[in-house]
Amino acid sequence: MGRKQENFSEWYNELVEKADLIDKRYPIKGMDVWRPYGLSIMRAIDRYTHEEMARTRHQEVQFPLFIPQTEFNKEAEQIKGFGGEVYWVTKGGNNDLDVPLVVRPTSETAMYPMFSLWVRSHKDLPLKVYQIVSVFRYETKQTRSFIRVREIHFFEAHTAHDTYEDAERQIHEDVQIWARLAERLCLPYVLSKRPDWDKFPGAHYSVAADAMLPELKTLQVATFHHYKDNFAKAYDIKYESQDSTHVFAHQTTYGMSERLLGAIISVHGDDKGLMLPPAVAPHQAVIVPILFKGKEAGVMDAARHLANLLLAAGFRVHVDDREETAGFKFNDWEMRGVPVRIELGPKDVEKAQCVMVRRDNGQKSFVAQADAAKGLAETLASYADGLVSRAWKTMTENVRDVKTAEEAKTVSGIARAGWCGSDECGQKIQAVTEKTVLGVPLDVAFPSFKEEAHGKLVLPGKGFSGHCAACGKATTTPVHIAKTY
Amino acid sequence: MGRKQENFSEWYNELVEKADLIDKRYPIKGMDVWRPYGLSIMRAIDRYTHEEMARTRHQEVQFPLFIPQTEFNKEAEQIKGFGGEVYWVTKGGNNDLDVPLVVRPTSETAMYPMFSLWVRSHKDLPLKVYQIVSVFRYETKQTRSFIRVREIHFFEAHTAHDTYEDAERQIHEDVQIWARLAERLCLPYVLSKRPDWDKFPGAHYSVAADAMLPELKTLQVATFHHYKDNFAKAYDIKYESQDSTHVFAHQTTYGMSERLLGAIISVHGDDKGLMLPPAVAPHQAVIVPILFKGKEAGVMDAARHLANLLLAAGFRVHVDDREETAGFKFNDWEMRGVPVRIELGPKDVEKAQCVMVRRDNGQKSFVAQADAAKGLAETLASYADGLVSRAWKTMTENVRDVKTAEEAKTVSGIARAGWCGSDECGQKIQAVTEKTVLGVPLDVAFPSFKEEAHGKLVLPGKGFSGHCAACGKATTTPVHIAKTY
Repeated sequence: MGRKQENFSEWYNELVEKADLIDKRYPIKGMDVWRPYGLSIMRAIDRYTHEEMARTRHQEVQFPLFIPQTEFNKEAEQIKGFGGEVYWVTKGGNNDLDVPLVVRPTSETAMYPMFSLWVRSHKDLPLKVYQIVSVFRYETKQTRSFIRVREIHFFEAHTAHDTYEDAERQIHEDVQIWARLAERLCLPYVLSKRPDWDKFPGAHYSVAADAMLPELKTLQVATFHHYKDNFAKAYDIKYESQDSTHVFAHQTTYGMSERLLGAIISVHGDDKGLMLPPAVAPHQAVIVPILFKGKEAGVMDAARHLANLLLAAGFRVHVDDREETAGFKFNDWEMRGVPVRIELGPKDVEKAQCVMVRRDNGQKSFVAQADAAKGLAETLASYADGLVSRAWKTMTENVRDVKTAEEAKTVSGIARAGWCGSDECGQKIQAVTEKTVLGVPLDVAFPSFKEEAHGKLVLPGKGFSGHCAACGKATTTPVHIAKTY
Repeated sequence: MGRKQENFSEWYNELVEKADLIDKRYPIKGMDVWRPYGLSIMRAIDRYTHEEMARTRHQEVQFPLFIPQTEFNKEAEQIKGFGGEVYWVTKGGNNDLDVPLVVRPTSETAMYPMFSLWVRSHKDLPLKVYQIVSVFRYETKQTRSFIRVREIHFFEAHTAHDTYEDAERQIHEDVQIWARLAERLCLPYVLSKRPDWDKFPGAHYSVAADAMLPELKTLQVATFHHYKDNFAKAYDIKYESQDSTHVFAHQTTYGMSERLLGAIISVHGDDKGLMLPPAVAPHQAVIVPILFKGKEAGVMDAARHLANLLLAAGFRVHVDDREETAGFKFNDWEMRGVPVRIELGPKDVEKAQCVMVRRDNGQKSFVAQADAAKGLAETLASYADGLVSRAWKTMTENVRDVKTAEEAKTVSGIARAGWCGSDECGQKIQAVTEKTVLGVPLDVAFPSFKEEAHGKLVLPGKGFSGHCAACGKATTTPVHIAKTY
């Protein structure tokens, strides 16, 4: 396996297959097979998403995969944005279809004709639904497992509201949901309001969460779009207000994908392999019995007993009883990113103890078997703290304040510079830096948002005072600038 | 809503929308939108399937949706069986694809090229995987929600084994899994080994579970296929045996779909609406507060207290606090098939009791609030017994032994008649009866299967002695004959 710091791409591409997350040998480029271990991690992420959706009273739906070309074409920006990268179904059996079908690249144009039927009165609002489905993009760029693929495991929440303000409250709630999820995944991020030229096709504005990967490029991992009544007008989503007038609804969406798994692999992994956050690890701990001749039975019994104790306490625990050496097993589970290894040999059995070893720093602790549940809880917590603090450290060390576009060009990571707000200067900053303007930090873009919505801010934008990195005009608005995937 | 006994189709088609299971107004025929209530029932069915798969050590995978035409064409029977009813993706963006892609109608041809890479040695066997995904069929027949649709919510388990016998053991396990699931869904069924002319494309043999719907036609709800090494030869799935020779693997599949929900609706529902089995009902009980002026607060408090008590005991319970009359709510929840309604009025609050009303027979019982959990458990159990016994009664009353094909023609429901085993006589029986030969009862087709694998047999075939319904030859093999969907 390549070394992460020397050749990130090689390291990443090898690890995703070596750790049995996916199989890239499927005969269509950019469409991987989810193997059980990888799918199990993704399902754990989905499980938290389902929980958050239930907590915030979103309802789960499932819309058809295909969208008639006639519906797809109703919103002009969507065609411009996605038309060049959708798959087309043109034949059923041996017949040419009368109306070609788009394989969904996202579901606005599938859902909103139905929203138009579902939304009648103000009592039907807010409407909050979501689905977790595959979406499809005919990628022409280089593909990379989980990060840029042609079949994407996708989460999309869609809402409709009576007013612009209520829709904006939804964006606020979405950002809070994201912050809770990111905490579970131990992922640092910056939140930016995207510049107008980079918003989602059809959106009024777009907010995004960007993670930072080892090459110090950022990866968009979550997006929140306020659509205003743009789509409502295209799809005729109107409600009867209390004074009996018919008013277009305001809409939002919240999107995430398997990129979350890509970010987890990239941010936390090391040269030995994955390091999984305890919240999504298929096994939070693996018990490796250390067998010596004649004492196998006692050790195996103790291992199973210990496993049952930990399973009963609610942990996901696995006993590795394969006929392999302990050393082989240690390496194997390190590669698969299991947070804690529990060693158990004849001496430990005698002393009624076990040895817990943290995946991140190899730190060992001897724990009485009777206290194993408490010991594992503590070890997992300190391991997760380790992941979080290392990841935030890397991010904060690679964010820098700069005064000019030329200076921003030299920054590896995220540069923060002033921006006068004009498209022209924004484009100039991009041209000079050969980087992307991620956008305006969330706390500056939305001073009305409550503090907790911002998550852990790397560089709070509030209170910024400087000059536009392109034209030099005085401004209190900074932007994040970075190389992106 | 139509009446179930008078016009089943009308009753069914109206109920699926009235009960908010799906919305049929999506602009592609045969592709419905899953609404939250309907999806919640399907997810509960899926949850049991996941549990059974974990119990029997199947691993969850997810394969890409698209299959290159070149792979799809490797197994001749599959092309014959599915070629006329698959959707074809022929364009990506504005480009014609070099190799057209099939949208999976089932996943043999997607999975087996990978199995060929995964299976190396006898140690890799048995390989047992499954996925729950959408599959697609370009149906030309009349569509019907859940029963015949173009996007199908589908479960498929695929296994590979070292020997024919081990694969047959898998079929045995599958039938047992099915029996456990059917019990939870309160669904009666017959198990038949399909005649050769009706087996799955590419299969060595097929076994199927058929339910009986109100028009006394049968509906195939689960299938189990032994592929022998037919696919292994087409996709080169070979393992190195212990004596170092390379041997083709033997394979099986197990399939189910959203038809299970169609069967639940059809078998249990009545003119008031659905009747959901407690195992899959989104709400197992709904508490309806009976409000009188001035006493609203006390009743609402008591209702919430009771709900918390029942939720804590593990039941799925909902308090209906809508501003509607009690009568409206009663009808509404009856229509949605909630197993038990709990009424709670001011007098009940005074007496610290509540009233539990069974959805199936309207039977009321007065239960002390302190005993509500016990009372609900008992009421749900007797309600489920009611569903099961009524459904089995309907089935057994409509299964009849007959001597000739002419006589079989007159039977509404399932006829059982002798069969000499020749294709010619089988086809003649179908022609004369204008019905379908479902196949040979499982206990006759597999005398080696253990008793428990057969589930609850309607008409045990073992011990049959009679004459072929077509040629009159003496035989100990009966077949099931019925009209099918």
